Amino acid sequence: MRTLNVAMIGGGFMGKAHSIAYAGMPMFFWPAPAIPYRKTVVDINDDMARTAAARYGFESYSSDWRSVIEDPTIDIIDIVTPNDSHADIAIAAAKAGKHIICEKPLARTAEESKRMWEAVREAGVKHMVAFNYRRTPAIALAKKYIEEGALGAILSFRGTYLQDWSADPNSPLSWRFRKAIAGSGALGDIGTHVIDIARYLVGEIAEVMATANTWIKERPVQAGGVDKLGTVKLGGEVKKEAVDVDDEISSLLRFENGAVGSLEATRNAWGRNNFITFEIHGEKGSVYFNYERRDELQVCFSSDPGDRRGFRTVYTGPAHPYGEALWPIPALGIGYTETKIIEAHDFIASIVNDTEVSPNFYDGYRIAVIADAMIESANTRQWVKTI
Amino acid sequence: MRTLNVAMIGGGFMGKAHSIAYAGMPMFFWPAPAIPYRKTVVDINDDMARTAAARYGFESYSSDWRSVIEDPTIDIIDIVTPNDSHADIAIAAAKAGKHIICEKPLARTAEESKRMWEAVREAGVKHMVAFNYRRTPAIALAKKYIEEGALGAILSFRGTYLQDWSADPNSPLSWRFRKAIAGSGALGDIGTHVIDIARYLVGEIAEVMATANTWIKERPVQAGGVDKLGTVKLGGEVKKEAVDVDDEISSLLRFENGAVGSLEATRNAWGRNNFITFEIHGEKGSVYFNYERRDELQVCFSSDPGDRRGFRTVYTGPAHPYGEALWPIPALGIGYTETKIIEAHDFIASIVNDTEVSPNFYDGYRIAVIADAMIESANTRQWVKTI
Amino acid sequence: MRTLNVAMIGGGFMGKAHSIAYAGMPMFFWPAPAIPYRKTVVDINDDMARTAAARYGFESYSSDWRSVIEDPTIDIIDIVTPNDSHADIAIAAAKAGKHIICEKPLARTAEESKRMWEAVREAGVKHMVAFNYRRTPAIALAKKYIEEGALGAILSFRGTYLQDWSADPNSPLSWRFRKAIAGSGALGDIGTHVIDIARYLVGEIAEVMATANTWIKERPVQAGGVDKLGTVKLGGEVKKEAVDVDDEISSLLRFENGAVGSLEATRNAWGRNNFITFEIHGEKGSVYFNYERRDELQVCFSSDPGDRRGFRTVYTGPAHPYGEALWPIPALGIGYTETKIIEAHDFIASIVNDTEVSPNFYDGYRIAVIADAMIESANTRQWVKTI
Amino acid sequence: MRTLNVAMIGGGFMGKAHSIAYAGMPMFFWPAPAIPYRKTVVDINDDMARTAAARYGFESYSSDWRSVIEDPTIDIIDIVTPNDSHADIAIAAAKAGKHIICEKPLARTAEESKRMWEAVREAGVKHMVAFNYRRTPAIALAKKYIEEGALGAILSFRGTYLQDWSADPNSPLSWRFRKAIAGSGALGDIGTHVIDIARYLVGEIAEVMATANTWIKERPVQAGGVDKLGTVKLGGEVKKEAVDVDDEISSLLRFENGAVGSLEATRNAWGRNNFITFEIHGEKGSVYFNYERRDELQVCFSSDPGDRRGFRTVYTGPAHPYGEALWPIPALGIGYTETKIIEAHDFIASIVNDTEVSPNFYDGYRIAVIADAMIESANTRQWVKTI
Repeated sequence: MRTLNVAMIGGGFMGKAHSIAYAGMPMFFWPAPAIPYRKTVVDINDDMARTAAARYGFESYSSDWRSVIEDPTIDIIDIVTPNDSHADIAIAAAKAGKHIICEKPLARTAEESKRMWEAVREAGVKHMVAFNYRRTPAIALAKKYIEEGALGAILSFRGTYLQDWSADPNSPLSWRFRKAIAGSGALGDIGTHVIDIARYLVGEIAEVMATANTWIKERPVQAGGVDKLGTVKLGGEVKKEAVDVDDEISSLLRFENGAVGSLEATRNAWGRNNFITFEIHGEKGSVYFNYERRDELQVCFSSDPGDRRGFRTVYTGPAHPYGEALWPIPALGIGYTETKIIEAHDFIASIVNDTEVSPNFYDGYRIAVIADAMIESANTRQWVKTI
Repeated sequence: MRTLNVAMIGGGFMGKAHSIAYAGMPMFFWPAPAIPYRKTVVDINDDMARTAAARYGFESYSSDWRSVIEDPTIDIIDIVTPNDSHADIAIAAAKAGKHIICEKPLARTAEESKRMWEAVREAGVKHMVAFNYRRTPAIALAKKYIEEGALGAILSFRGTYLQDWSADPNSPLSWRFRKAIAGSGALGDIGTHVIDIARYLVGEIAEVMATANTWIKERPVQAGGVDKLGTVKLGGEVKKEAVDVDDEISSLLRFENGAVGSLEATRNAWGRNNFITFEIHGEKGSVYFNYERRDELQVCFSSDPGDRRGFRTVYTGPAHPYGEALWPIPALGIGYTETKIIEAHDFIASIVNDTEVSPNFYDGYRIAVIADAMIESANTRQWVKTI
Repeated sequence: MRTLNVAMIGGGFMGKAHSIAYAGMPMFFWPAPAIPYRKTVVDINDDMARTAAARYGFESYSSDWRSVIEDPTIDIIDIVTPNDSHADIAIAAAKAGKHIICEKPLARTAEESKRMWEAVREAGVKHMVAFNYRRTPAIALAKKYIEEGALGAILSFRGTYLQDWSADPNSPLSWRFRKAIAGSGALGDIGTHVIDIARYLVGEIAEVMATANTWIKERPVQAGGVDKLGTVKLGGEVKKEAVDVDDEISSLLRFENGAVGSLEATRNAWGRNNFITFEIHGEKGSVYFNYERRDELQVCFSSDPGDRRGFRTVYTGPAHPYGEALWPIPALGIGYTETKIIEAHDFIASIVNDTEVSPNFYDGYRIAVIADAMIESANTRQWVKTI
Repeated sequence: MRTLNVAMIGGGFMGKAHSIAYAGMPMFFWPAPAIPYRKTVVDINDDMARTAAARYGFESYSSDWRSVIEDPTIDIIDIVTPNDSHADIAIAAAKAGKHIICEKPLARTAEESKRMWEAVREAGVKHMVAFNYRRTPAIALAKKYIEEGALGAILSFRGTYLQDWSADPNSPLSWRFRKAIAGSGALGDIGTHVIDIARYLVGEIAEVMATANTWIKERPVQAGGVDKLGTVKLGGEVKKEAVDVDDEISSLLRFENGAVGSLEATRNAWGRNNFITFEIHGEKGSVYFNYERRDELQVCFSSDPGDRRGFRTVYTGPAHPYGEALWPIPALGIGYTETKIIEAHDFIASIVNDTEVSPNFYDGYRIAVIADAMIESANTRQWVKTI
């Protein structure tokens, strides 16, 4: 069985998620397309990199990502750094002929994202952007129903991604609140997942009409580079700085195929933690999903007799997408880990089988185009075309 | 105890709802502000009116609403006819000095609605428009929390009203699908309830940006005047005619106070029956409501300790709005009847106490302005101001 | 259309529920089997009875139930008094040839209940015991599925009735906590509803094995005769007396047809308000119901394909039992009122059509036998046969 | 950092779960108490063992568990075989001085379990039985509330474990339906998890009163040794054999501390997949949990004001047990993997820190005593004491 050597750039919580995915993938998908070997991990200094290697099970470590990219034994570059470094790393990795998986959003802007896509296209390497949620089995099941025609033509889509970890004005101003690093706020961080899901399930988005708001105008400056989500107690005198990204975005959507939709993304929704939901109405049925209860998909078929029609709560298991690889019965438990294991599998399979995988850098670029259009629309108060 | 004589114009399912409300109101609210006496019911011919009187417990009946309005013994005119007759009846009733309760939407357009409001204002009579859902105790409880400041300043609102009774292309083209009678489609029929709730809970709407769609372009013509909702088997050769109203409306909202929001109303959502929902995010908390589970309100307070914070599912009962009048414990059961009993009480109390009641014809007019603006926005693809 | 004169004995909250049922029944069920006329209401003194007549819309009132029973113009005696008076009133009414509807439980013990059943049987009058919950459309829908064979042979039943209105040790010692009046505690008050539902849906109960507990040993004495549920502030020095009934009952069940089951009834379940639930597993499917969300029934059919099988959430409406008489679409709202309207209809139809209705006094007696057996079992720690 | 060498006996789906737990544990819990090294895996023949080693990332493999137990480099024996081999392996491992983690139930009977417990006690090794569900953060949160006294004294417990993977009479007769291998049916396989949770949260169980049923009397014989759950298509002529274990167990419980309870375990509940639920009522509050929605715990506190009291839906995250080690926000996703990672951590920490861990072999023995008592009670129709 082939082995692919992975170099992971970045050692935050996403590093954890990717590392367990590499470790677990062959355990779940067997025979595995290839064994991902955790070769090298890169962090911002040697101490942190050494710790990351020990913790995440990598053979070696480095604090110099450029030299790692030049390492000829490396097959895959895995980018789990903040958004502002994605483009530099990915373009260098593409030039070095590495396959690349990059955390989302692909970059800070459509322009950056386009350059990344062009780089991988020219290099002929495999590329994926890690919008992992669409690999939740229940979302993949919605896709299956739609492709089977069980819902008929899609009429409308409503997607949300609501969180509350930064609803407190005292939660720190991490890099996620700095435009120079993050590109945008709730939109890029979480709204882009909804855009990914909308494109995956309904189709290409043709135009958008959005509003954007920054509810909390300034936040306490966070010392150090650690990306702690949520409230962190900051001692002594607290300095505050202005937030220059959106806390909330709300948008109408028009799809190329005539369906309509809406998107809502906010980190100011008290009580919502990771509330990724969508509801899709088709001519022949509907689906509803809520990631907080991610083992289940709700689906209603108009063809059911009137005295027994209603949303079915389907718990995903062996009879559903990815089911054979996961657990032997439904509701044994899909967690974040499982979504990342599936993602790792599909990426590595695309390398071994020389096939395309979605969402790839082109999708990441398209998502950035749509996200940028939402910001433009919020500023101009006009519909903005995205194709 | 004072008695107020009611003449009810119309005998459809809304006639049933209003009749049981008059019968039940003193049983629930005791001592009652006054006893509403079911004096006269009017329907489109004598046979139907006679039946309505027997069925709904009215003393007399008529097929001539104009003469009933002139009857000096009548105190209250209750309008439960299709939308196109609201203005004529209400304006005549106002001129005759009657207090008026009118089913929603107030009329087909803002212009008609404005004339009705002017008529009651000039006549000095009491007036109410029957957006009953806001009187669901759980919605009134959300209002109470907001007024207490428990949610802080409101940031955003998301409201839906989703149904599926006309999602089948073979469901008949009742008056609700004819612009000349209904004014608009899903927007007027159900979307206006969401506008009412939004104004009630969040505040005045300042501008809107909407899309509108007619998913089913033609429907079978319904024989007779009966307003059957949902699929009705039509025998023989079925003639179809064009639908000239919206099946679905989706809108962004900006409130006068700076909050943002969205509204979605559709009758093409398979599996959603009477899915009136709203979610409101405030600086200090959130509420969520779903009428299909109407005994409960979900509320999250940011002030709860982090290890025990989450949406509370509060079942309304004696400790909540209207609770003393209703049932002795929560979840004994709030139904459509109970919402109408509360509505009847509040209207009659406003007459007896000479106070204003909401939503009144002014509110009905404002809602019509906002609804008309949504249609305009859907046509012009521009934000439309509503104040 | 025939009119039946009703005399209602008792004027508490159940009097309200029955009164609106009589008023509303013909509005919902039309043509009605007969018009129930609210002729006379009886309460414990003239003042209270006069008020009850005004409030509940009765023509006359009395404080002497015996004379009312002798009134030859009365067709129906409706008993809504505390449990200790049911037998005397019902037996007298039967002897006077009146049809009788009696609130649940039928009486304090199986022995009392049996005498009541023998009295109505000998008198040849119609009789009903007001276990109204089984008339919730969603429960009747479960019955329909079972009768159609859609669930196959029933294997097991789990029923609960959980409340919290007396979970506070300071909630008053109303008559519901006195064995001499109530017969038993949570068992008689709420557990008997579960027994009724179990017999209705699964079949006759053959034996029981129970535990019983009195969690709160003494409660403040309530001044006056009013039956206030829940916490009532009692001023001054509070006297406490011992509770001599159960707060909680838990039982295993064996049905005559081989199914097994369990029952749990408690008034000490904080957060549960009117939590009447059941789950039934059959060879071919399952149903789940929760009265707190009473518009819906959950049903799973094993015959659904494996990739789309799950509990369907069916909202009851016109396509379901009683649906034509209720509201034009599902989830418009079933409340306590609607369950009582259906009950009134079925009782009056049984009189007019000279048919049997369920649950009748025989059912009430059987339920009392089973309830008494639970108490005996809790005392003897043995299975107790009930057939 | 210390390394502990693991030998895992068995290579089925539980082998997968344990392997990813060892790989992921240091990634989640850092600094880890020790690094578990996947040294050797044992399966029933060399081919299967070789595959298991490749798939699960073990350095070596064997088909002879006895020799592996004698390997002086091995620190931990992990038993993931069918129930009938647990005792032999564990007792041998204890004699060899290995620390032992064993899948649940500990053994087929209390007698076997007791011998295992005695063996580890005498050997002075660390021991754990893998009732992983209690390590779901939401269940640990319930424990925390109880220990804080937030629910007051516990009055009652209701626990269920419902599945449907063998509800189909054509699902194969795997070892789980053979008493000689499994010991018991639904009781041992899933009911014991509920017993573990009940003891963990409420306290020791003092006596039980149960019923047991075998709904499907015979099943098709499964070829080969693979433990496939659920329906498997068996070709050709199908031979059926009798099932000699329970499909369903239902029991009343009395706890040592005076609380009462019930337990229901069945694999014949269509629509229930991994429906591990419990509801606990205390003097001051209640909790409810459903593993199918395992990221959340519902809790009601009586101390909340009456106008805002209700079950809170708390999503577990960093503020809750194990939260720092898991994901940075609630509802990012707890899956089966995460429960097993926590279990691996706690076991390895007990070795490194020389502390006791729960549930250990003593707990496993106690659970077996209680399970055996349920079978005895079902046979004798008597309460059976368990302490």
